[in-house]
Amino acid sequence: MDELIASTPEPPYYAVVFTSLYSNDADEGYQQMAAKMLELAAQQPGYLSVETARGDDRLGITVSYWQDLDSIKAWKQVTAHLDAQRRGRESWYERYEVRIAKVEAAYGFDGS
Amino acid sequence: MDELIASTPEPPYYAVVFTSLYSNDADEGYQQMAAKMLELAAQQPGYLSVETARGDDRLGITVSYWQDLDSIKAWKQVTAHLDAQRRGRESWYERYEVRIAKVEAAYGFDGS
Repeated sequence: MDELIASTPEPPYYAVVFTSLYSNDADEGYQQMAAKMLELAAQQPGYLSVETARGDDRLGITVSYWQDLDSIKAWKQVTAHLDAQRRGRESWYERYEVRIAKVEAAYGFDGS
Repeated sequence: MDELIASTPEPPYYAVVFTSLYSNDADEGYQQMAAKMLELAAQQPGYLSVETARGDDRLGITVSYWQDLDSIKAWKQVTAHLDAQRRGRESWYERYEVRIAKVEAAYGFDGS
């Protein structure tokens, strides 16, 4: 992640909105795994970019951007990612929701 | 926002991913305006739900969910919201990106 706000091409492309609520006992192991998964995702075919934010209320939102649905499906099945998903359910997340969406329009503001 | 993770219907529905980078001088006025806009959005036709997270790095992600594109377009033009957008560009945001996306699939985990 060179930039906090993702650089993405002209739509259409795909977004995966991953909203998660930590367990109270999410630990350093989580931080390491999360960083590793961001790094691994960036190496996958069709990956475009990612944005992530987590506040003090244990809620996090990570949005990853992809060229197409097939890239998203392939990433979901990468072995190390499957392992991370399992550990997430066992240890780190109280709850999460994944939404797969086709970005149809985008606009922005840059006052910097 | 009764829940941190949004309850949404079966897809399809729409998501607006609003990713923003605070200016260094974002202040209390911002918090008040943001809370007011979340409240006002929830009163709009076609509104479904919202999720929001902001970390220590000045990056925030707010995802609002809507029944259809027309609801999103109408909300963008609500007078008080137009005023908030203008103040956001003038005072609070260094940069932001808005992505409008059709949610095609969703799944979750609830271990609570």
